[in-house]
Amino acid sequence: MRIIEPSATILYMPDQEHLLEHLERAARTCYKSEDKIAKGSAKKLIRNIVQVRHESVLEHASVSVRIVCDRGISHEIVRHRLASFSQESTRYANYAKERFGKEITVIRPFFWAEDSPAYALWLEAMLKAEEIYLAMLKAGAKPQEARSVLPNSLKTELVVTANLREWRHIFHLRCPSSAHPQIRQIMLPLLATFHERIPVVFDDVYETFRQVIAAW
Amino acid sequence: MRIIEPSATILYMPDQEHLLEHLERAARTCYKSEDKIAKGSAKKLIRNIVQVRHESVLEHASVSVRIVCDRGISHEIVRHRLASFSQESTRYANYAKERFGKEITVIRPFFWAEDSPAYALWLEAMLKAEEIYLAMLKAGAKPQEARSVLPNSLKTELVVTANLREWRHIFHLRCPSSAHPQIRQIMLPLLATFHERIPVVFDDVYETFRQVIAAW
Amino acid sequence: MRIIEPSATILYMPDQEHLLEHLERAARTCYKSEDKIAKGSAKKLIRNIVQVRHESVLEHASVSVRIVCDRGISHEIVRHRLASFSQESTRYANYAKERFGKEITVIRPFFWAEDSPAYALWLEAMLKAEEIYLAMLKAGAKPQEARSVLPNSLKTELVVTANLREWRHIFHLRCPSSAHPQIRQIMLPLLATFHERIPVVFDDVYETFRQVIAAW
Amino acid sequence: MRIIEPSATILYMPDQEHLLEHLERAARTCYKSEDKIAKGSAKKLIRNIVQVRHESVLEHASVSVRIVCDRGISHEIVRHRLASFSQESTRYANYAKERFGKEITVIRPFFWAEDSPAYALWLEAMLKAEEIYLAMLKAGAKPQEARSVLPNSLKTELVVTANLREWRHIFHLRCPSSAHPQIRQIMLPLLATFHERIPVVFDDVYETFRQVIAAW
Repeated sequence: MRIIEPSATILYMPDQEHLLEHLERAARTCYKSEDKIAKGSAKKLIRNIVQVRHESVLEHASVSVRIVCDRGISHEIVRHRLASFSQESTRYANYAKERFGKEITVIRPFFWAEDSPAYALWLEAMLKAEEIYLAMLKAGAKPQEARSVLPNSLKTELVVTANLREWRHIFHLRCPSSAHPQIRQIMLPLLATFHERIPVVFDDVYETFRQVIAAW
Repeated sequence: MRIIEPSATILYMPDQEHLLEHLERAARTCYKSEDKIAKGSAKKLIRNIVQVRHESVLEHASVSVRIVCDRGISHEIVRHRLASFSQESTRYANYAKERFGKEITVIRPFFWAEDSPAYALWLEAMLKAEEIYLAMLKAGAKPQEARSVLPNSLKTELVVTANLREWRHIFHLRCPSSAHPQIRQIMLPLLATFHERIPVVFDDVYETFRQVIAAW
Repeated sequence: MRIIEPSATILYMPDQEHLLEHLERAARTCYKSEDKIAKGSAKKLIRNIVQVRHESVLEHASVSVRIVCDRGISHEIVRHRLASFSQESTRYANYAKERFGKEITVIRPFFWAEDSPAYALWLEAMLKAEEIYLAMLKAGAKPQEARSVLPNSLKTELVVTANLREWRHIFHLRCPSSAHPQIRQIMLPLLATFHERIPVVFDDVYETFRQVIAAW
Repeated sequence: MRIIEPSATILYMPDQEHLLEHLERAARTCYKSEDKIAKGSAKKLIRNIVQVRHESVLEHASVSVRIVCDRGISHEIVRHRLASFSQESTRYANYAKERFGKEITVIRPFFWAEDSPAYALWLEAMLKAEEIYLAMLKAGAKPQEARSVLPNSLKTELVVTANLREWRHIFHLRCPSSAHPQIRQIMLPLLATFHERIPVVFDDVYETFRQVIAAW
């Protein structure tokens, strides 16, 4: 069994300069103010657009992220309807095969110290689930049947593509303390990355969670 | 531990007569042919609408269904983006509490005979998962943490609301042999029920799967 | 030429009592608190749901409205993506036909007094557009071609179906003074009707616009 | 008054090579077959994905297009719900202003020869509408009021962003002879452009309309 950390890696993100120019062209279409396009005008305009919440403009560019998380968290993530997903299939992946190392991979639950009794219990459950999953496949079960015994902690992967408006919405929903700790574990650093690379669009959301991110 | 069968129960469905009248009013708005409304005209019009695939008309009425299934199947169901969901939360439900009978509930995997070795393995995995989940909560873990060890077979419940066009789409995707057997186990009988109550809208979809439903 | 007022008429709306019971069942599925269902519990729960903005619950019921407005307003209305529309087609309706009275119908622009110069100009434009539209059809043009000359004030009709969450969103966007006066002319009275019939779900939105509605 | 042709210009489109690599990464996440990534593998895989209609993979990349058309066509275009729009506003644009040349711009209806009686009628209607629109603004009306008299042929501009799956859907709906001639006038050449630049994703749609495009 492999135990890994969750992660989020950007697969596609426009660079801020081109992005702002693109969004400016879209925004100025509404007001037919393309004549005002000049050096520095895009940044100023989009900052304003964000501030006055003319958010439809932010839909004209998308970001794709690879998220590695457990199946409890992925079940929450795919609830975002204005996004596109390609997810590792427990129907088609056969973890008993050589190419998966004949083992399952699980996400370490970060809220338990590795020497705590809770972690020991969790580990016991994981090993038992793996043992039975592999036994089932050996006995002829299909992966889509044997998955019945796989635990919530099973590692899964998703490519998530959403436009900038939706990403802002996702961060607003998934970063506060009301969200599940393991989705925050993914989303808080991801917000920091988005903010680092496209500050003009994420400044306000980042500001809301700056202290949490710093303390995480 | 409780082992139950999956199910789908209709919570809200308009009766065919009122429904057809409602859809007829919507459809005739497009052509301004309200003067043709007469006894029997609705059924004839909507049959035609379905046949020529003017499906946007079918969006004007919705059906709500309570689905009881396992968490693997629910993970697939919530991928339907043009639908609304309220789902039992593994963050808030504490199965160690008296009101849950201090036990977990799982969905019986119908593809294994109850006296087969696969079923015995599955049962062993379920009992172990339950044992550890309950032990974790006893030791002070929160439900949203302890859920890590819960298996894919865990029973969940969703209220799913979708319009008639989307339900047609769902049946088209989830009834064929390419779909997971446990989602077919839910959707095939559900299609039969939809067809029984609103045949005019579901005749063609039902026809496609009639033999499978009969043999299921 | 016929000059009419815009309007919004409810075609389908669940009555509050059944609605609240339905929404309660959906909401309690999340927390598995169905045992708390009792006389009066639905109203209390849904009021709370609205207050804490657990709005996904409000998606389980829809309302259908017939809106009669001009083509400028309808162009804004169909931008709401989480709604379903059936709209009078300028491609298929032939206003030169007997059944349309061989005339076009337009929406009176309420912001001009009927004895003002602006209104006189508007009327002149309408009559000219009608005259040419009819002449074109007489000369053999198809309705989908002749529509080129029809004015923004042309009356159109839409059946709009949306769930309660989306209607709340629509009112929030279309009732403030930043919205077009002619969409407010439709939405403010419509909000009053929604509030009268389903106060529990629309109390807060109505409160926001109560004074505007009273003064309208 | 200015009379112009409709058009569609690509504002953002990924180049095929990077696009296919990106889509391949998403697709292979489902099957965890990243080990099969090799020179030429992306093209082969995505061709297959398109053929077996695993279209969700095609949602991971978007294309932005600037469309210049009349307000009748734009009213149809914005009905596509899985797309994002920024549209020239008749509320904010004041065509009586110097920067609009104190004139309106209209789209030439291509189905009438410029020396036909229908065209002459159309031109008369346009000039009258412009005359009254300008007179109204001079008399103090706001643009959002005076727009009442503007004709369906009024030029408008939209930036439309949609993912590749949705663009395929748009072409399937808007290219056949059942679609409005003026939307076909835009979409048929646009499909040819999409096909030229991303043939792997648009081969089959293009094939369906190849002869129509050639003859257009």
